[in-house]
Amino acid sequence: MDKGRVKTGHALIGRGSANILARYRQIHILISYLTSLISTQLAFEPVFLAQASPALLSTYAPLAAKLGIFGCYLQTELGHGSNVSALETTATYIPETQEFEIHSPTLTSSKWWIGALGKTATHGVVQAKLLLPDGKRGMKDMGPHLFFVQLRSLETHKLLPGINTGDIGPKAFAGFAPTDNGFARFDHVRIPKENMLSKFAQVTDAGEYVKPPHAKISYGGMLYIRSGMVTSAGWLIARAATVSIRYGTVRRQGNRGSDGLECQVITYPSLYARLMPILARAYVYIEMGRALTRSFNSMSARLATGDTSLLAELHATTSGLKVLCTTTSVADAESARRSMGGHGYSVFSGIGRAYADLVPSVTFEGENFVLDQQAVRAALKAYRSIFSSGKAATTVDASSLPPSSAYLRLLIASDSQPPSLTSASWLDAEILIILLEWRAAALVRDFATAAASEKTDMWNVDPTIYQRVSKAVTESFVAGQVREMLKTLDANQRLGNKERQTLKNLYTLFLLTTIEASLSDFLTFGLLRIPDFISSGVNDPTRSLRQAISALCKEILPEAIGLTDALGLSDWELDSALGRYDGAAYQALWEKAQTEPLNQKEIPDAYEESIKPMLQRGQKLAKL
Amino acid sequence: MDKGRVKTGHALIGRGSANILARYRQIHILISYLTSLISTQLAFEPVFLAQASPALLSTYAPLAAKLGIFGCYLQTELGHGSNVSALETTATYIPETQEFEIHSPTLTSSKWWIGALGKTATHGVVQAKLLLPDGKRGMKDMGPHLFFVQLRSLETHKLLPGINTGDIGPKAFAGFAPTDNGFARFDHVRIPKENMLSKFAQVTDAGEYVKPPHAKISYGGMLYIRSGMVTSAGWLIARAATVSIRYGTVRRQGNRGSDGLECQVITYPSLYARLMPILARAYVYIEMGRALTRSFNSMSARLATGDTSLLAELHATTSGLKVLCTTTSVADAESARRSMGGHGYSVFSGIGRAYADLVPSVTFEGENFVLDQQAVRAALKAYRSIFSSGKAATTVDASSLPPSSAYLRLLIASDSQPPSLTSASWLDAEILIILLEWRAAALVRDFATAAASEKTDMWNVDPTIYQRVSKAVTESFVAGQVREMLKTLDANQRLGNKERQTLKNLYTLFLLTTIEASLSDFLTFGLLRIPDFISSGVNDPTRSLRQAISALCKEILPEAIGLTDALGLSDWELDSALGRYDGAAYQALWEKAQTEPLNQKEIPDAYEESIKPMLQRGQKLAKL
Repeated sequence: MDKGRVKTGHALIGRGSANILARYRQIHILISYLTSLISTQLAFEPVFLAQASPALLSTYAPLAAKLGIFGCYLQTELGHGSNVSALETTATYIPETQEFEIHSPTLTSSKWWIGALGKTATHGVVQAKLLLPDGKRGMKDMGPHLFFVQLRSLETHKLLPGINTGDIGPKAFAGFAPTDNGFARFDHVRIPKENMLSKFAQVTDAGEYVKPPHAKISYGGMLYIRSGMVTSAGWLIARAATVSIRYGTVRRQGNRGSDGLECQVITYPSLYARLMPILARAYVYIEMGRALTRSFNSMSARLATGDTSLLAELHATTSGLKVLCTTTSVADAESARRSMGGHGYSVFSGIGRAYADLVPSVTFEGENFVLDQQAVRAALKAYRSIFSSGKAATTVDASSLPPSSAYLRLLIASDSQPPSLTSASWLDAEILIILLEWRAAALVRDFATAAASEKTDMWNVDPTIYQRVSKAVTESFVAGQVREMLKTLDANQRLGNKERQTLKNLYTLFLLTTIEASLSDFLTFGLLRIPDFISSGVNDPTRSLRQAISALCKEILPEAIGLTDALGLSDWELDSALGRYDGAAYQALWEKAQTEPLNQKEIPDAYEESIKPMLQRGQKLAKL
Repeated sequence: MDKGRVKTGHALIGRGSANILARYRQIHILISYLTSLISTQLAFEPVFLAQASPALLSTYAPLAAKLGIFGCYLQTELGHGSNVSALETTATYIPETQEFEIHSPTLTSSKWWIGALGKTATHGVVQAKLLLPDGKRGMKDMGPHLFFVQLRSLETHKLLPGINTGDIGPKAFAGFAPTDNGFARFDHVRIPKENMLSKFAQVTDAGEYVKPPHAKISYGGMLYIRSGMVTSAGWLIARAATVSIRYGTVRRQGNRGSDGLECQVITYPSLYARLMPILARAYVYIEMGRALTRSFNSMSARLATGDTSLLAELHATTSGLKVLCTTTSVADAESARRSMGGHGYSVFSGIGRAYADLVPSVTFEGENFVLDQQAVRAALKAYRSIFSSGKAATTVDASSLPPSSAYLRLLIASDSQPPSLTSASWLDAEILIILLEWRAAALVRDFATAAASEKTDMWNVDPTIYQRVSKAVTESFVAGQVREMLKTLDANQRLGNKERQTLKNLYTLFLLTTIEASLSDFLTFGLLRIPDFISSGVNDPTRSLRQAISALCKEILPEAIGLTDALGLSDWELDSALGRYDGAAYQALWEKAQTEPLNQKEIPDAYEESIKPMLQRGQKLAKL
């Protein structure tokens, strides 16, 4: 119809970096990954397989594997989430019949948000507090344990007696629409004693408790999920970057160029300065996700031999990373969606849906504000282990510090101070990395000093302190990861010079924008030692940083289409009219609109019922 | 069921400020306000009534008023939004028949996003470029004009010949779900010459163009809409604050208090430090929205007499305010939603839906990045009118500056400099207001100086400069508004001392958090003249500001429920299970879940079709 107008897009920006394709193309798991996390595959099966007794496993493991039963994992309650020890559902041991009685004593004890529970699952693992007979004193509370409960008949799919389940209703933003998140109430439901998941804790026939051998082993699953969330975040950003950069090259608006057409909107600084940093984050997060998976695998291998030495390090790292990556990725997705203007608000942009599915990641699997505290506690512990009053810090071997606290080496060397900067420093990745490490060091030292002098938890004094310190420490870790990426890049013989330079530019842009986004920290602690920095009140001394960002964005811009293509996301995966590979965004929007159910009839059903009476009444009134 | 647990919420925090109720209770327009903006009431009728000829008005105005016809306003096209001059739809004058021919020459000229167009509207005002005969040279393009077009038969609701309309499909986040946003294509559709809206521009029978008398008069409607957006933003924030603060007092999680119950989550610093500033913004924005409506009315009254003197001032103010208020309100809504953890993701929290409906406000009615440029241009003009090379700035009468550029007075007095601060300064609202004015002055002076020395548009050098300057100038204006609010408050005899102090605290918190959010600007330009500010590298010199924020949040906390009640939002308006007035959040979630259509049958329809075959297949496989 008007192909010329629509098709001019991508070619102008070019597909310069297509060679990078080979490095980055892979099978993507993407959104469906997180969706499935809280549904049956990843929530029920690993727990069941890891903790059920051999007898239970022999009957149910094959069924679960073949989907002959459908399992779910019931932990969260209507009134209880993060604080597992406060769960109200009870599992009372009845020695007479050697059964447990599962019961929901209150409204707030209703299981809630459980994936696949409402209408689908036949069985579930229920987290409930174990109550054991305690002689004359009644029952004693042994805290939360896991129980395998059949929910529905395998013949009729009817709920078993005493069990009431249902769907909890729609989620915000129409997120997780295909997932049947459900509730459950138990009314004195009896299960055989064997159904307690007893790998790590057992109850004897008489009702005696047998302690678990090793509590920390169950942390592994949590760390696996958190490591995976970095990768998911990376791919959400990749998806948002691909769609928005493609659409930005197709969309034309405003000033007319020398070709008589309006400019491609991506050539406006307000747009490319938003999108190039998002593209850079996609590359860094995906690469970091891979590194974390490798770390997780090393830890698991050691854990299997009883060696828990890597557990604390991975825990410290993943707490802060989970916060940073989930927060950043949903923010980037929304920023990319808004960069597409009006059409970004169409469901056919595809990004709204991806955002809606990922946005709960900031509050689930460890609420971000809670995780920030864990990250800071780990940092504080590392700081104090070096700078405790008893020993001289300079005796600590800085090279022995693990990646999560490598930045502390800056404080050990007594003569070390932040680098002096010139405008050329902004292109030196190593200087940027050290600046990010200095910021972590400055904030942790300040926090530790202040905490030592306060008689209360620091957040009573400064409620945002945990967030700032956690972010600083985590971004210092990420900067260290980028240092590794740059080393690997230098050693990579398969890449040409141009590809290598393009990726270096992306990594440098990532570091620069990370600094720029937390400028107040750097200024507060005097870390930007630019000559004549102390302002005369006229010239903005931080402009040189912003100029460097701008220049780098412009340099990356001609490679942007190539770099998004290289992420290898297919049209099917993107499911976006605006981000189609062939650039036919308007044609795609038109075609998608034709599929709208309302459009299948010329006169809508509402006409006879609502529109016609209103119009007729109005016409009569107007004539009076 | 377990009333004790559920009902303990609000009372502990108290309803202390209920007296403020009288001041703030009012009829609320809220979300439906913005929804209707782009639908028939506010998009079609004002344009039609203001610009149609007397002949058209006599026939159609009574019908439109009584809804005997249903109008829509067709401006945006698939390929064109902000840049109206590039619209492709044509209206070609045919002198022989004295008709216009409305035509969509390309796919990208399809009208798109038009409220009520797809299946509902019977008539529309179409924005199309007027083509007039130009002798031998063919046609001349007179730019965009408005034409009244009947779309559907009033007898059968069928589309008239040559017209193709439909719904454009769902919106992101399930936003604007009840609004029938539509598309339209016109295939050489003829309308009588009288159907051109001719109040401001006409075509003679012979096809000669008659110019509009006064182009600026049509700006009035745009400014009305932008002023209204401040009010809408205020009420969205009010809604988010009410729901999240109520839920935060009901929800208990974590440490157990002296009553043996877990703590109300709102008593955690990480939560109240997020929610109290949101509450403060609700109060400030609502009050500011009222002031803007008064300004708009003054301007309209003058405009009616041909006096355009207030137009530029209101234009300068509303551009930046539209950006600030839409961006902040959707961010606050989302932050409040996340503060509610897992249940915040339920559609029954109510905030997700409000966000989904308001979030397009950042890209419609002037895309925010485009409006930032307008705000900065106005600021630059004001600066240059004083500091042009020809005259001495000190001769300018500072008291004659309009509110939008009042901060420039700080640069006129040669001896003026930012105030010296002590930790007590953070409680002095006037000092905070002056700091915000100094920041605007510093950024505008820096921008003007840098712009004069660059040979290119500043955004090529520093892509975020427009945003930063626009925000600084707008927040300085808002600070001036708060100064007026404090004066009014002091003069208000109906309020008791406690109520007055509570509102002062809110205003002060608003100012403090505004400064804290842009700390890097204040640090960059050396505006925080705290004694021993230059860091020793150990103590965070900005902690005193954060401590003041924390202390003020704590002081406001016991009044928070009273202050949200005082906003007067009814349960019906909030439509939120979590934010119910009576605090029965869990009961409400339970009841809402029971209304889920899936729950009307114990066995879902999907069982026979999908679940049963899967389970049976799995059971067979497991036995093999």
